[in-house]
Amino acid sequence: MALSEFELIQNCFAEQAAVSLRLDVRLGIGDDCAILSPRPNNDLLASVDTLVASVHFPESISPYQIARRSLAVNLSDLAAMGAEPAWFTLALTLPEANESWLREFSRGLFDVANQFGIGLVGGDTTRGPLSITIQVQGYAPTGLALRRDGAQVGDLVYVSGSLGDAGAGLALALSGNIDETNYLVSRFLSPAARIDTGLALRDVASAAIDISDGLLADLGHILKRSQVGARLQANAIPLSQSLRQAVGEKKSLELALSAGDDYELCFCVPPEKADKLIVIAEQTGVPLSRIGVITAETELCVLDGSGQSMPLSPAGYQHF
Amino acid sequence: MALSEFELIQNCFAEQAAVSLRLDVRLGIGDDCAILSPRPNNDLLASVDTLVASVHFPESISPYQIARRSLAVNLSDLAAMGAEPAWFTLALTLPEANESWLREFSRGLFDVANQFGIGLVGGDTTRGPLSITIQVQGYAPTGLALRRDGAQVGDLVYVSGSLGDAGAGLALALSGNIDETNYLVSRFLSPAARIDTGLALRDVASAAIDISDGLLADLGHILKRSQVGARLQANAIPLSQSLRQAVGEKKSLELALSAGDDYELCFCVPPEKADKLIVIAEQTGVPLSRIGVITAETELCVLDGSGQSMPLSPAGYQHF
Repeated sequence: MALSEFELIQNCFAEQAAVSLRLDVRLGIGDDCAILSPRPNNDLLASVDTLVASVHFPESISPYQIARRSLAVNLSDLAAMGAEPAWFTLALTLPEANESWLREFSRGLFDVANQFGIGLVGGDTTRGPLSITIQVQGYAPTGLALRRDGAQVGDLVYVSGSLGDAGAGLALALSGNIDETNYLVSRFLSPAARIDTGLALRDVASAAIDISDGLLADLGHILKRSQVGARLQANAIPLSQSLRQAVGEKKSLELALSAGDDYELCFCVPPEKADKLIVIAEQTGVPLSRIGVITAETELCVLDGSGQSMPLSPAGYQHF
Repeated sequence: MALSEFELIQNCFAEQAAVSLRLDVRLGIGDDCAILSPRPNNDLLASVDTLVASVHFPESISPYQIARRSLAVNLSDLAAMGAEPAWFTLALTLPEANESWLREFSRGLFDVANQFGIGLVGGDTTRGPLSITIQVQGYAPTGLALRRDGAQVGDLVYVSGSLGDAGAGLALALSGNIDETNYLVSRFLSPAARIDTGLALRDVASAAIDISDGLLADLGHILKRSQVGARLQANAIPLSQSLRQAVGEKKSLELALSAGDDYELCFCVPPEKADKLIVIAEQTGVPLSRIGVITAETELCVLDGSGQSMPLSPAGYQHF
């Protein structure tokens, strides 16, 4: 017997959410609102992101992959603020209530949710063109969240992991390759969400952002909000072996500077705290690379190997 | 000169949101997350709802009306829990960045937001088929939120306002009448969000819900969660003069029982607290009608004027 829509959603979301309920959730899914009891002496960090089929991901990727990616890119916003994941809500718009699709989506969602200890506390399922809106919330001790507006002249600029991989992975996914054993594809489909790195940076970084729209565009947001500039060394920008082999040196750098979707962190650190990063990189297992310095001139320049300023095209992801 | 998408959204949302920033918002729109400082000794109530064009509202209604309705139906979930509105996020998916559309949408949104003192703290604008997802959050003193699961045998069942109006209003709107001077149309386009009533019921009601899917369906949720039944008096169900005149007595009752979109509250009150409702109705200016009683038999029946149980068709709004 086919399950009703209500039963389907109950089975796929509400029951699983109930299993992993947190102590700061007094009442989960099933009433008009969830009842949450926020931890004292903490700020709440809140962010919302929508992913629309064929705008933010190719229609060819599986529901399991769609769910994982949707939650991971939202968690990345918490990582960028140095927040500990707490709760999320899911608004899912679907053309039809397809049981196998919902089960696979739910499996991907809870794989990531359970990995990061974030609880699903509310949802809405509606009929319409496929899109996923997730709002995440997390904790940071009062006043300690990382922001974009704290960079100071002389701070060193760092990024986590390697850049450009997801840009190349997206191109592969668009051409039909959604094999996650391919490193570049997996970097697009399963963004990292650098939560541990973000938490460790709370007492260290002066400003931080996650790289969703490309290094130049996102670092640009830090510079604008902090009213400073930056000078980057092109050859210090971390590029993976896989990326270099797949697209060559020049294209790799281009992707690293301007392609989005890596969801690595870009952050600034006062020079006297820079040695803490070695420990953080070791403890989290995520490499941290120094790529430049914050300057007083309010512009962003990238120097090539011979110290010449490289011509930059206006970069950044346009939503429309 | 045409504004860029970024400037448009900045002008239409971020600047207006900043103007009305609350004291419990440390940082509003413009970083990876908002930073919120929840009030101590309170629970947070959280709910999310998506409205999809031509599923939840006719495409013909104006952006101003779409925005007002979208926020109001979300506020109604806070009202149902007895919560005081605090913050909301907006995920807006649009076919194109149309300046006049965005300005009108924004005007409707802030008209309602400012009326209820709720602050816009985050958003995401993406390209795609028109849909609006709003997550609201509000406060209730720890443990005092109204829930669906507290109804007791012998409690009296009440509803606020009048029922069925929005169902008739939707039919008019679907036929092209979106003139808000028509009472029924206005009841569909501008749901009330009974926040004041919900707040006043915190110490009085044993259970509450908002009527989005029809009285029978929504009261049914209270009964199921509370493991009780109810017996209603058909002639006690409040019907407006406008509704009776427009569709007649029989159809009015049918709409009142089964049509959604009224966003009135349905709630249960122990008999010894019933006299408090007279004061609440006077103070809020919203009529409260006693329509029945909670019973031990776990079923819902409606008695006609001669005390006969009326045959009920399975009711409730199906999303798929």
